Amino acid sequence: MILDPVHVAGAGMIRFGKHPAETTLETMGAQAATAAMRDAGVRAADVEALYVGHVFGGPVAGQRIGARIGLAGKPVSNHENYCSSGATALREAWIAVGAGLYDLVLVVGVEKMTDRVKGGVQPDPNDLDASIGFLFAAGHALSARRYMADYGATREQIAAVAVKNHAHSVANPYAQYQKPVSLGEVLGARPIAEPLGLLDCSPISDGAAAVVVASRAGLRRLGIRSAPRVAACALVSGTVQAGLGDVNEEDISRRAGAEAYRIAGVAADEIDVVEMHDCFTIAEIVRLEGLGVLPRGEGARLTEAGYTSLGGALPVNPSGGLLSRGHPVGATGAAQVCELFWQLTGRAGGRQVEGATTGLAYCKGGSVSGTDGASVTTVILTT
Amino acid sequence: MILDPVHVAGAGMIRFGKHPAETTLETMGAQAATAAMRDAGVRAADVEALYVGHVFGGPVAGQRIGARIGLAGKPVSNHENYCSSGATALREAWIAVGAGLYDLVLVVGVEKMTDRVKGGVQPDPNDLDASIGFLFAAGHALSARRYMADYGATREQIAAVAVKNHAHSVANPYAQYQKPVSLGEVLGARPIAEPLGLLDCSPISDGAAAVVVASRAGLRRLGIRSAPRVAACALVSGTVQAGLGDVNEEDISRRAGAEAYRIAGVAADEIDVVEMHDCFTIAEIVRLEGLGVLPRGEGARLTEAGYTSLGGALPVNPSGGLLSRGHPVGATGAAQVCELFWQLTGRAGGRQVEGATTGLAYCKGGSVSGTDGASVTTVILTT
Repeated sequence: MILDPVHVAGAGMIRFGKHPAETTLETMGAQAATAAMRDAGVRAADVEALYVGHVFGGPVAGQRIGARIGLAGKPVSNHENYCSSGATALREAWIAVGAGLYDLVLVVGVEKMTDRVKGGVQPDPNDLDASIGFLFAAGHALSARRYMADYGATREQIAAVAVKNHAHSVANPYAQYQKPVSLGEVLGARPIAEPLGLLDCSPISDGAAAVVVASRAGLRRLGIRSAPRVAACALVSGTVQAGLGDVNEEDISRRAGAEAYRIAGVAADEIDVVEMHDCFTIAEIVRLEGLGVLPRGEGARLTEAGYTSLGGALPVNPSGGLLSRGHPVGATGAAQVCELFWQLTGRAGGRQVEGATTGLAYCKGGSVSGTDGASVTTVILTT
Repeated sequence: MILDPVHVAGAGMIRFGKHPAETTLETMGAQAATAAMRDAGVRAADVEALYVGHVFGGPVAGQRIGARIGLAGKPVSNHENYCSSGATALREAWIAVGAGLYDLVLVVGVEKMTDRVKGGVQPDPNDLDASIGFLFAAGHALSARRYMADYGATREQIAAVAVKNHAHSVANPYAQYQKPVSLGEVLGARPIAEPLGLLDCSPISDGAAAVVVASRAGLRRLGIRSAPRVAACALVSGTVQAGLGDVNEEDISRRAGAEAYRIAGVAADEIDVVEMHDCFTIAEIVRLEGLGVLPRGEGARLTEAGYTSLGGALPVNPSGGLLSRGHPVGATGAAQVCELFWQLTGRAGGRQVEGATTGLAYCKGGSVSGTDGASVTTVILTT
């Protein structure tokens, strides 16, 4: 690896959910940033640069956040890669710190959506998929139908993703939803795009998450002896499938995983915990298979069997994931990394994955098929 | 300097101006990118990553551009720092290439504004300056009034910036305006915010500009023996003035310059040519003084005397600048670097600054006072 070692020195979040209109994006971003700085024990004066990920915050939103937390004057940049915006901000920070340009920087992912978005997120007017009615829910419904037909998976097995993730976030104080949902509730929820119902879909949320990223010298400056290392922060783009293949053979997930494993020098079977972009229940299954951490066609059955639950062989979304922690798009990538940080430092409380030393966070942004713009970031953290 | 040497291997632009509605942002970005790749002699297959700067292009616009030019699959990221978005994209590319992560990457700045913006650019609803009516034109009018009062500068001297920049871009085939304007035309133009009239203000424009950024290994791969080096790409944020001082004592410009000179190891008096963010005539003067390339209070007089004209001691905006090349906000920072590249490689035709070996490009984004978010990038290119 060409970059110097880069670590996460601290993490902070605010609870995801519906925040009042008077709680601005700037306020939320500043609150998460302050929590992360406090967690790392770093003063604003010692933070050298600010990397902000958001989609809908408007021009120079990051500079407005920086001004509120004592970073006025410092280099501030705003990064957008749709739902992977927060992870893209982390990636640029990882490169800058790994290049030796900075020792201590702050990464913030933030989004205020509930007072802006009615129903689902509207696609970009230039999105080719959307122009033919192929919206997110429709695309994932198609994926679910095909998955069930190809592998004999049941609707109940797919719904088990929602049951699991809601169960996990009962123990996550930052989650939008903190109570269990039953299989019957998932199956009986209002249909959105059959077979998917409301509880198969991630909600519209407000929220912010932040991490302090540090070089070894930065850690020393904070008196931190050891901290999880950002072993990889891969970024790929392009179409979801290769050619005209199976909609559930996610080439983009395969490439995103392969690139991250290569950079980190880690094999898929060494991952102890996954934070997965479960924007829809079926997406969690298909992407875990794409990453190679579950065998193809087995994901639904394994989910129902508890393989990906807390206490299972490979816990996925101990945080509750997008389905239950919530999905303020620009914040999600940063929140995933907060969760991995807490998991790898043994601070995840009632949702702790025992003995986790290597975690992976997968975040996807862009159009359904990716023919007109998709972006996947894959972050690997190791102790 | 911690980063490995980073070079500009090629540049490409489309003409700035009003493009038809059917010429999309994606098309414009792809055209500029293709021109830059052709100029550098690099094939899409050999471009390792794409960095895109824009403000109004919507989510994953960069990925849509990448898909049109054969970069699907590669890492693509979108960068926003208002009018300095294109320069911020360059900065992230500079860091990644300087870190050894890539040898050949593409940077694109792009904006489609004419079918979206009526009158001036509307400020962000959260912009504190704007909420009290302190819009861009008002802020710069205040600056002009104060400058005239403090230094005995005349309205004609300030107007001379527009006359000069329009004269320069007569020889720039990429400029929105390519005919001279007289002093009388500037003085007689429709008032916008007195003393500033329409020709003191940069126009609303569509456009795209791109550069290929290369490591030394990248240059070798392209068979390029020498190419201008990105000696610095500084980024600062924060308030324009320090404390309650003079509105024309631009602390942010002083800091932006100092940081760039430090990184590049270049002194202000070694700069041969400047591409300056002349969003308004007076802004060119005040910012040149802030950078320390003109003495305080002397800029207006020196402009009238031809000091900053082609053939003068320090040519500023040989391209025509924002006033006459046009100002598609996300594209401007990239266009400035294209111009420096052409100047330093002796390819600027009728607007060539003879013997130029060191050029500086200054780009400012954000609110008027910067109390609520401003961003300045300063790029230094050397042969």
